[in-house]
Amino acid sequence: MTAARVAVMGSGNWGTAFGAILADAGCDVTMWARRAEVADAINGGRNEAYLPELALPQSVRATTDPVEALDRADVVVVAVPSQTLRANLSDWGASIPSSAPVVSLMKGVELGTTLRMSQVIAEAAEVEHNRIVVVSGPNLAPEIARRQPAAGVVACTDMEAAERVASACATPYFRPYTDTDVIGAEVCGATKNVVALASGMAEGMGFGDNTKATIITRGLAETTRLGLALGAHPQTFMGLAGVGDLIATCMSPLSRNHSFGVRLGRGMTVDEATAELRTTTEGVKSCQSILTLAQQHDVVMPICEQVVAVIRDGHSASEVGPRLMSRDLKAEKH
Amino acid sequence: MTAARVAVMGSGNWGTAFGAILADAGCDVTMWARRAEVADAINGGRNEAYLPELALPQSVRATTDPVEALDRADVVVVAVPSQTLRANLSDWGASIPSSAPVVSLMKGVELGTTLRMSQVIAEAAEVEHNRIVVVSGPNLAPEIARRQPAAGVVACTDMEAAERVASACATPYFRPYTDTDVIGAEVCGATKNVVALASGMAEGMGFGDNTKATIITRGLAETTRLGLALGAHPQTFMGLAGVGDLIATCMSPLSRNHSFGVRLGRGMTVDEATAELRTTTEGVKSCQSILTLAQQHDVVMPICEQVVAVIRDGHSASEVGPRLMSRDLKAEKH
Repeated sequence: MTAARVAVMGSGNWGTAFGAILADAGCDVTMWARRAEVADAINGGRNEAYLPELALPQSVRATTDPVEALDRADVVVVAVPSQTLRANLSDWGASIPSSAPVVSLMKGVELGTTLRMSQVIAEAAEVEHNRIVVVSGPNLAPEIARRQPAAGVVACTDMEAAERVASACATPYFRPYTDTDVIGAEVCGATKNVVALASGMAEGMGFGDNTKATIITRGLAETTRLGLALGAHPQTFMGLAGVGDLIATCMSPLSRNHSFGVRLGRGMTVDEATAELRTTTEGVKSCQSILTLAQQHDVVMPICEQVVAVIRDGHSASEVGPRLMSRDLKAEKH
Repeated sequence: MTAARVAVMGSGNWGTAFGAILADAGCDVTMWARRAEVADAINGGRNEAYLPELALPQSVRATTDPVEALDRADVVVVAVPSQTLRANLSDWGASIPSSAPVVSLMKGVELGTTLRMSQVIAEAAEVEHNRIVVVSGPNLAPEIARRQPAAGVVACTDMEAAERVASACATPYFRPYTDTDVIGAEVCGATKNVVALASGMAEGMGFGDNTKATIITRGLAETTRLGLALGAHPQTFMGLAGVGDLIATCMSPLSRNHSFGVRLGRGMTVDEATAELRTTTEGVKSCQSILTLAQQHDVVMPICEQVVAVIRDGHSASEVGPRLMSRDLKAEKH
């Protein structure tokens, strides 16, 4: 069997790390980078701008031409910033080979439309849902770069497509588990960034692991409520895309959303945190659209509400905590 | 209304921290300590031996006389080492007031019988199951001592008894959630220590948050399988006693099981780790009985199996990891 040809569209830190996984699993990988210096760096063996700690395998090549990257690809992986997905697909979506599974590595909800990433792919590139595959899990790119043991979910409504992608990315250090719940995986991927902001805030205020574990657990409860309202499978939330990714994203100093939250917890404003980290984060961008989506489905998300109060309305992290702790006592299940 | 009288039977670190929660919530707390120096220290305002960082409220008193502690108690809290529970109850179990809820803070499975702590209480002290209450959650005692925000589950088959205990321990920093799934809360409490050993081993071997999050998630999956086989409610595993406590116990340097695992991961033997930490831990003691319980119910627990291989059979942590990563690829749900 010849090696599968995989196009990785986007050369940020997770796209680059996943490209390395695919190459380590035996695929022939072509990455598309928007900027020539990034493509050149990848062709030189190291994506200095985004993931300098990763020594890329020889079989990873890069180009700035999306059509060249997509040419005869057996699998297409999409890893662009989520709010740029629609514009990207209008540029090169028509060049996606018509039988290739399209793998989304993106986490977020489109502003304005409140669509999940797979829905944007289906709508903007006319890809059938049964070949859109979502990969999610506790996959901090810098640890993947060091080839530390990790696992992820590979979800598609068509189990055969999920298995095809799982085989393409199985390595001794990355263990893919197949699943059919695309909605659940995507809801988890979007809301974890918001919960990570809250967990980071608690840490920034000086609180420890009890507090963070409580926020993650109650964040999981509200994520599950939203997911079930959208048609997800309840068990997904207990899995790698749910609990697993929440833990990594909410506990690790390598997580950008967590780091952003820590700064808010120390008393910085959103502008100050953005200036210090020289970037905003996915949770900052999508907390409002997730809350809107929840309200459209009559789902109560107290943690997300309080994160929005901080991000959009300028409330301080120290105002927000007591509001969450002073709600009426109640049963854990309902 | 007069303050509820609560007897806390056992003055280790979690018993002491929970005594402070109860006092902060307005209860009149009498702690029983086996050793006079511990009782004296508590009466002096600080349990120096077990939780020196906690300034105890005035309303916490201590005695070495179990009958005095239990006299006219409205609520009895039991917090002795789990493998000593049966012997303790044979000493003073008959003095438990016949209408008082009996709260178990203990985590473990009795060696030999494979009984959960509530089962031992029911059997050895003839307490009806509808007044046995289990409290569990992400509650690292040193953080509770600093009165940092946390939450826990208060579970009893009788919701009214659960609510009575929840009211007795609700404070601005500790938020109890009531539940009826005693079995689920206890299974989570026992197995989390074993998963924490595994997570600690990964950390000791130099691995980061992806690896630990993966171990926690797959540990949750095997905990859930065991719990369901014993009659637990699936949602419990997503809650504070499940995910919440797993996160705190598996991620925090304050967790003794985690710390023990870290030393095994660095290549120490069980004896060397025990010597360095001057104690063994609950997970070391109960991993074998949990595995036996699982085998009795035909439940597969790969992480627990590998922990037993290290603890009982002397395999090294570095032998164990690859065995978990190289199993056949499969679906996440089954």
